[in-house]
Amino acid sequence: MTPAVARPMPAGLAWRPDGQVVLSGPLLRLAQACDEAWTVLAGRWPAEPEDHPAMLDAEALQAVDFLTSFPHLATFACGLDPAEENLGEFTTRPLDETGVRLTRLAPVREVLTPAACYHVYVHHRGEALSGPRYVTTRNTCFRRETHYEPLRRQWAFRMREIVCLGDRREVTGFLRAATDLVTALFRELALPVGWAAATDPFFRPTRSPKYLAQRLSPTKHEAAYRDLAIASVNLHEDTFGDAYEITRHGRPATTGCVAFGLERWLYALTDRYGPAPAGWPDVVAAARRVTAVAVAS
Amino acid sequence: MTPAVARPMPAGLAWRPDGQVVLSGPLLRLAQACDEAWTVLAGRWPAEPEDHPAMLDAEALQAVDFLTSFPHLATFACGLDPAEENLGEFTTRPLDETGVRLTRLAPVREVLTPAACYHVYVHHRGEALSGPRYVTTRNTCFRRETHYEPLRRQWAFRMREIVCLGDRREVTGFLRAATDLVTALFRELALPVGWAAATDPFFRPTRSPKYLAQRLSPTKHEAAYRDLAIASVNLHEDTFGDAYEITRHGRPATTGCVAFGLERWLYALTDRYGPAPAGWPDVVAAARRVTAVAVAS
Repeated sequence: MTPAVARPMPAGLAWRPDGQVVLSGPLLRLAQACDEAWTVLAGRWPAEPEDHPAMLDAEALQAVDFLTSFPHLATFACGLDPAEENLGEFTTRPLDETGVRLTRLAPVREVLTPAACYHVYVHHRGEALSGPRYVTTRNTCFRRETHYEPLRRQWAFRMREIVCLGDRREVTGFLRAATDLVTALFRELALPVGWAAATDPFFRPTRSPKYLAQRLSPTKHEAAYRDLAIASVNLHEDTFGDAYEITRHGRPATTGCVAFGLERWLYALTDRYGPAPAGWPDVVAAARRVTAVAVAS
Repeated sequence: MTPAVARPMPAGLAWRPDGQVVLSGPLLRLAQACDEAWTVLAGRWPAEPEDHPAMLDAEALQAVDFLTSFPHLATFACGLDPAEENLGEFTTRPLDETGVRLTRLAPVREVLTPAACYHVYVHHRGEALSGPRYVTTRNTCFRRETHYEPLRRQWAFRMREIVCLGDRREVTGFLRAATDLVTALFRELALPVGWAAATDPFFRPTRSPKYLAQRLSPTKHEAAYRDLAIASVNLHEDTFGDAYEITRHGRPATTGCVAFGLERWLYALTDRYGPAPAGWPDVVAAARRVTAVAVAS
């Protein structure tokens, strides 16, 4: 594949024909610094780090209509039925020119993480919140797309999120403060980024009540570097609180999140500052400065 | 699921019915410390960190007979055929009591990472090495099993590896030194661990020439805490060098690796030192001490 990235390669980037990337050297250190920077931002709130599995129970996801809303995005974790003859049949010719020749699959119950924050809502199922709860989590996320481009649009990519669960006022307050903080970081990094309302990529959007609701009352805002969304701020209202029986003041909790796409930040930073590491900004120091200002104000 | 772990839960551990775990608080910090400790050990060599994708090309894996040797372990990353009618059919009833009701799949070409080091050999395909090359990499690995237990045996788990590619003398020298270094870390941590020859879990082992070769000439040694392997040292001879045309002195390179299982270390450390974080050792400091001694000697 010829990458759409028609510019000198940043030091430490290699890509595979399927658009997935290998990071090493300076670019790997920049990736680690970005994640550390977002963790510094998360420290603006008492955000508890949580480390979640690679996959999610399909039934739990469908409780919020995930499979019917986004069937085209889902990646399923599939294994072969372990019956001896089934495995034996598979091994006679595991591959042909179209790819893997699967034989009978074992029951499929897991979807590879579509967004880091889903785990948080499922994990806190049944909780009665006595105050707003803040969580930060990072995961490898999987989204099928019609085409892939290294760093810009990958089947598998990394995402960190800062999540708030609470009442509507607590969550909208968090989202406003998070938007301001992320905007301040963009300014500190001199990254030209604009916010705009956006919608999730629903299947058959015009037939989806959820898509229509999003169009009427925007609940998703994306921060775009040129044409590329590198962060988003999302208000889920009580969708997750309702589905997973998370309550606040005895009613379904509201949830919201701010999400950062790791590979896309690498694209934006190396596009803005060039492929040579010497020109890259200290993103952790920038995050510390804007967070200190936000905490003091 | 009732976990096999019949002991008080370490602080920060939660598990799901499928045996996968959520880490937070002290246990998440211990996990981060373990990974940092192994990275300190990797610093004993000029090991370059590499960050690899979540999945591997099935054809590249089959070049070393992976699919025919381990069909029962593989997890495939599967998406639905994106044809509108196929997705539409899926959404009419995505789930039943047996799990996800998949409709037609898109061609399957990727296997979720079975071991972190496979990526390294594929990535360095075609290289003519001018000296030994050392790499360290960490990934989430996927292995189907007949049953799962939190921390001890998970479908998805984390693994860090230190890899050497070179001639046979360079690689066996690395493996000896790595075995000594890891043994010194166990001693420093007062973890009772024994090394023993082991074999990979081949499908139909008695019909597999590779299994028989491993039995005749052990190339895998596992370090077990009680009944649980928590690290392994592996000599692949020129299997990967030959398959991926990596050469040293004009001949297929030899490769070897030392591998650490993150969740299993958490099991071992919390079993040895109890569930209370106050009793846990400083694994990073221990790794620094043994690495300093190894470098000086």
